[in-house]
Amino acid sequence: MSAQPHWPGVAEARERLVELHLSLVDNGLVAWTSGNVSARARGADGHEVMVIKPSGIDYAALSAATMVVCDLHGAVLDGGLSPSSDTAAHAYVYRHRPDVGGVVHTHSPYACAWAARHEPIPCVLSAMADEFGGPIPVGPLSAIGDDSIGRGIVDTLDGHRSPAVLMANHGVFTIGPDARAAVKAAVMCEDVARSAHYAHQLGIPKAIPPDMVDRLYNRYQNAYGQHDQPTPSG
Amino acid sequence: MSAQPHWPGVAEARERLVELHLSLVDNGLVAWTSGNVSARARGADGHEVMVIKPSGIDYAALSAATMVVCDLHGAVLDGGLSPSSDTAAHAYVYRHRPDVGGVVHTHSPYACAWAARHEPIPCVLSAMADEFGGPIPVGPLSAIGDDSIGRGIVDTLDGHRSPAVLMANHGVFTIGPDARAAVKAAVMCEDVARSAHYAHQLGIPKAIPPDMVDRLYNRYQNAYGQHDQPTPSG
Amino acid sequence: MSAQPHWPGVAEARERLVELHLSLVDNGLVAWTSGNVSARARGADGHEVMVIKPSGIDYAALSAATMVVCDLHGAVLDGGLSPSSDTAAHAYVYRHRPDVGGVVHTHSPYACAWAARHEPIPCVLSAMADEFGGPIPVGPLSAIGDDSIGRGIVDTLDGHRSPAVLMANHGVFTIGPDARAAVKAAVMCEDVARSAHYAHQLGIPKAIPPDMVDRLYNRYQNAYGQHDQPTPSG
Amino acid sequence: MSAQPHWPGVAEARERLVELHLSLVDNGLVAWTSGNVSARARGADGHEVMVIKPSGIDYAALSAATMVVCDLHGAVLDGGLSPSSDTAAHAYVYRHRPDVGGVVHTHSPYACAWAARHEPIPCVLSAMADEFGGPIPVGPLSAIGDDSIGRGIVDTLDGHRSPAVLMANHGVFTIGPDARAAVKAAVMCEDVARSAHYAHQLGIPKAIPPDMVDRLYNRYQNAYGQHDQPTPSG
Repeated sequence: MSAQPHWPGVAEARERLVELHLSLVDNGLVAWTSGNVSARARGADGHEVMVIKPSGIDYAALSAATMVVCDLHGAVLDGGLSPSSDTAAHAYVYRHRPDVGGVVHTHSPYACAWAARHEPIPCVLSAMADEFGGPIPVGPLSAIGDDSIGRGIVDTLDGHRSPAVLMANHGVFTIGPDARAAVKAAVMCEDVARSAHYAHQLGIPKAIPPDMVDRLYNRYQNAYGQHDQPTPSG
Repeated sequence: MSAQPHWPGVAEARERLVELHLSLVDNGLVAWTSGNVSARARGADGHEVMVIKPSGIDYAALSAATMVVCDLHGAVLDGGLSPSSDTAAHAYVYRHRPDVGGVVHTHSPYACAWAARHEPIPCVLSAMADEFGGPIPVGPLSAIGDDSIGRGIVDTLDGHRSPAVLMANHGVFTIGPDARAAVKAAVMCEDVARSAHYAHQLGIPKAIPPDMVDRLYNRYQNAYGQHDQPTPSG
Repeated sequence: MSAQPHWPGVAEARERLVELHLSLVDNGLVAWTSGNVSARARGADGHEVMVIKPSGIDYAALSAATMVVCDLHGAVLDGGLSPSSDTAAHAYVYRHRPDVGGVVHTHSPYACAWAARHEPIPCVLSAMADEFGGPIPVGPLSAIGDDSIGRGIVDTLDGHRSPAVLMANHGVFTIGPDARAAVKAAVMCEDVARSAHYAHQLGIPKAIPPDMVDRLYNRYQNAYGQHDQPTPSG
Repeated sequence: MSAQPHWPGVAEARERLVELHLSLVDNGLVAWTSGNVSARARGADGHEVMVIKPSGIDYAALSAATMVVCDLHGAVLDGGLSPSSDTAAHAYVYRHRPDVGGVVHTHSPYACAWAARHEPIPCVLSAMADEFGGPIPVGPLSAIGDDSIGRGIVDTLDGHRSPAVLMANHGVFTIGPDARAAVKAAVMCEDVARSAHYAHQLGIPKAIPPDMVDRLYNRYQNAYGQHDQPTPSG
């Protein structure tokens, strides 16, 4: 696979990942050193690589220099630290989903509750229709460290509009055209997992009719946000 | 409708909206870029306008300059960014409720749980009687982007003392004489939605007798706060 | 009642109350401008007075100067702002409990859930035996603004070791030998209200045997903390 | 027991404990002055000692100088303040578990809910298999201040891979090869207590098969984190 001009360079990806990892902390998605974000990037020789968090390092100690550059099979190309223990799963996704520019993994607590019961999150809120276009599906319980999780992610998301998948008894993986979009999906996944949890605690929420889900999803994907000018972000 | 002298000017409204949006974040009412606040303002030519958050912009990137000025049908008068995708709903409220100076929309999680079940929040706490004068009602599930939501808000609040309405499967809209009052109503709505949720989780809370609700509401609306001198706020 | 030499002077009480009010915010006990702390103080003429938060003022805007000095019937002696709308309740407590040097009122959410069901918080955790010496009792649903609430607090706490009372459908009042101790009781009340709530959500917690409650309470009241030297606090 | 060269010196232990106590606050594990961390250290004469938090002191007021040095029976060797009221329990653990370099005690709320019901936390999430290698067990309801709690901790953890134990109606104790590892176990204990609580609120989570638990535990203990170079921490 040749490099796409729109992927960020490695130096830029390293910088962005620092900020995005802190965003996981600020949004309450991670405990201690768990969770990780990666980005597909353009290597110096024009080949695609991935940049990912090092394993088991405190969030407050992350810097651009601590991020690890790997090839798309997870082999370390540049970095003094070992990459995330979830590297194989990220790499599998990048190899099999050439549209994906960022991957996020968390054990965010409300999403984990649905995952522990192997239950998809039902689409009972318009914000969920907006971002996920329907339920958030559940993938298989898999070993960590080989291709099992990556394959579970890719196979489960096939045919879904959702950029998030709950891996059974494990946690959340999200994908996006870039790492920031994947982080947004992780934040919104926990937000809707939480509201749907609360809604079910005192009764049965009303489903949103499927045609309304479609209308909400299409509007949000096309009309929300800024389309004609550069967007400030902070 | 001619301009009321008591509405803030556009420049003042832009400044206030920055602080009020950050207040939504500080109070845990919003995730990522969701949620928005608007204010009715006095335009340069003396006509009424509304000032509102731009669509899909990070809260940390908001400034007075990024706010968007629209007429009361939602058409952009001044602003380099697209306005909130909820602009039509805000505009409808300003057109049909000339007493309203501010509108807030959130997907705050406990309120959303009641909204997903299409259940009003019952008045089981004196703080709720104080601020809302009774239950917080539920409006219809509506498409986003046209007048449906605005009409649902206005029609549902008609005949209620509550400045908050839960829109089914969607979230919260609140109104107030100014934007700060609408933000306060949004904060208190989530606060009572949460306490009422907790109360119902382990049994059936006792209702407050209707005459006590009336006494609490009347006292709070008339005796609470500062009435004889300028109020410091920070 | 003549002044006790151990009550702080008014200037000192004003300063301490600023910090203690911020502690309510930091501990998540209050929303918007709700909640208040007062302290019994020694007035300039040697008579006892109370110092209390002004009504409806943002926590971030509180300063020593904004606090209001009242006599023990709630009449304002010094202050440019109106005192808390709960002033009559605080004043009643100071008049009828000469041992009390501080009073706190909050609508902290888990405690409010028990209060909305008119249920005392059962003593199922050693930390609750330590601080409260048994269940936290429930007082009557009362009108706000006259002596009803103050009488309900004093009458309900009579015969209990608990420095906290849940006022039905309303919230929490706590007392202490000084305002800091009352704030501690408010923090611990919400902490045990929350843990007890969680415990009951998935079954029936085991009660702590009464003799163990007594042993825990007596040990904590006598052996916990620093007794022989000045205690740093921050 | 002679001093192990790998235990930190007393000065270093004092410094580390300040940061680790603040970590309890940042992770939401403690209310007011509850909770404590201790470390086994190498005293000036080469004998082993323990360094522990003083009793009832605000977290914000802790400094290296306020920490208390005790022998392994809890007698104060150096310190102007009284040690934690849980000192006897920490000391018992150090005497009977020579492999333990750090002990943590908290009343973290979700763990306390399981403890109040005398129920172990079941292993329904891979993160729990990673860190705890199975369920988190429950120890007996014991008096505070003598050897009962220490003995309950040591006896209950015997034969478990878990570094955490829920003491019935009381709270959490965790152990580790150093104080930082014990703090990590306390953070992860509350994290999995919370997710397991949520999971059980809406149904029965699926168990992770025992052989998968073993695989996850062995991988995490051996492959996670950094093994070949010094690890940055912050």
